[in-house]
Amino acid sequence: MNVFVIGVGLIGGSFAIDIKATFNEAMIYGVDKNEENLKQALSLGFIDCTSDLESLEKADIVIVAIPVDATVEILSIILDKIGDDCLVFDAGSTKKKLCETIERHHKRRNYLATHPIAGTEFSGPQAAIANLYRGKTNIICEVEKTAFKLQEKGMEIFSRLGMRIRYMDPGSHDKHIAYVSHLSHISSFMLGKTVIEKEKNERDIFDMAGSGFASTVRLAKSSPDMWTPIFKQNKENILETLKEYIANLTHFKGLIENEDFLAIHKEMEETNYIKTILKGIA
Amino acid sequence: MNVFVIGVGLIGGSFAIDIKATFNEAMIYGVDKNEENLKQALSLGFIDCTSDLESLEKADIVIVAIPVDATVEILSIILDKIGDDCLVFDAGSTKKKLCETIERHHKRRNYLATHPIAGTEFSGPQAAIANLYRGKTNIICEVEKTAFKLQEKGMEIFSRLGMRIRYMDPGSHDKHIAYVSHLSHISSFMLGKTVIEKEKNERDIFDMAGSGFASTVRLAKSSPDMWTPIFKQNKENILETLKEYIANLTHFKGLIENEDFLAIHKEMEETNYIKTILKGIA
Repeated sequence: MNVFVIGVGLIGGSFAIDIKATFNEAMIYGVDKNEENLKQALSLGFIDCTSDLESLEKADIVIVAIPVDATVEILSIILDKIGDDCLVFDAGSTKKKLCETIERHHKRRNYLATHPIAGTEFSGPQAAIANLYRGKTNIICEVEKTAFKLQEKGMEIFSRLGMRIRYMDPGSHDKHIAYVSHLSHISSFMLGKTVIEKEKNERDIFDMAGSGFASTVRLAKSSPDMWTPIFKQNKENILETLKEYIANLTHFKGLIENEDFLAIHKEMEETNYIKTILKGIA
Repeated sequence: MNVFVIGVGLIGGSFAIDIKATFNEAMIYGVDKNEENLKQALSLGFIDCTSDLESLEKADIVIVAIPVDATVEILSIILDKIGDDCLVFDAGSTKKKLCETIERHHKRRNYLATHPIAGTEFSGPQAAIANLYRGKTNIICEVEKTAFKLQEKGMEIFSRLGMRIRYMDPGSHDKHIAYVSHLSHISSFMLGKTVIEKEKNERDIFDMAGSGFASTVRLAKSSPDMWTPIFKQNKENILETLKEYIANLTHFKGLIENEDFLAIHKEMEETNYIKTILKGIA
């Protein structure tokens, strides 16, 4: 089984590690425009050799794990080059634009639109880890547009890697993921920015920061190269979530200004409901 | 050594556990207005017996670990009742109001104003854990106002529990802690609120939430009873941080609206500096 991993960073590399461990017959080809990343991936051992887009005709599986704007640019080219029995799937955090882009491609049935809800705040080949996908959700969009046999091929990989599957249309995916993922990244980046701006001349202050701050600001370590195109592609949904988030913060600020501490207590008590929601996530 | 723990929840209970483990001669007296908490603390075994404020004259150490408004109410009463060689310290997340309240108390020198930067999002006796304070920072305010021998007594406890000490005046403490702790809690609570409001009728959506969301919204599980009085006592500083946070979010929203993705990339890249800051915290 020839597996081409396009983008040998955290996401692609972690797929490579688990596929190598799970499928004895897998041969992993690494493709990356960054030569340094390819060298690292080789020396870390999760790819067997480096390759390029011109060699895709021998691929059985192609995993696209690059920023979402690059995926939109390159997916048609990949589909042009693969054989009829090859499955291509991506791991991007936006699905609508991508699905629209290749909607009429003559090899649309070779592509499966997926979003594994897995990752860390780190990036690059050295961030790749084993079992990243175990117990995680994989969201699959427009499954009916993928050839049945290739769906099966994908499912076998996801199942052996320990993922559970949810099906969703690309529009709903992008709308909801804006709330449960994209907004978290912005809230975290802006929290980091606010504190850095205020405290940049107060180097000792970060001794005061505890695990709570670290947890809330963790996502502000994420890669701007990866996240900028996500915000671009999901602009409308993200603006909606940001509008509501800012409105809630402004309302809370008003309650503090007016010293309405009963209402503040009530807001927090109601939001404690998140405990129930989070059970089983973290 | 008679140690009175007033408030046998996460903070007081975790002190009790470590002090029992570290000082063989320690006898732990639990005081709590909640009978159920006392029962739990007894059955969990981290207090040796229950007690009350009337018995404080036999205390060598009093640890006050209750919401900050209750501490302001009760600290003078505690100081009235203790003997001359007793050390009282608290663990509250605000220090200015408290220090002002007991500024002229004739037993001011028996009190050490401390804020151990340690905790979890859980609360109550069952949340108490061993080694909560190991490797954590303990901020001490107005150390010069505490009797030298009682400072030493406190330091011995903090040192044996594995804490490092930072000294700070109460005003600076409250200002900086607003940035590195209080703002994180509000950003997290409002993130939780925004997502719950939007998604309350979409029960399946939380399958889409990953560890990033869980991390960012973790503090929204925190106790409203503990946090409402903190927001009340540190109102002015928190309003300042919230104003800046909302301004940064609004600016970022504007960049997305105007599709200025170069600027968005730059904001995130600069905020990645948080990696350097966080080293050694989480």
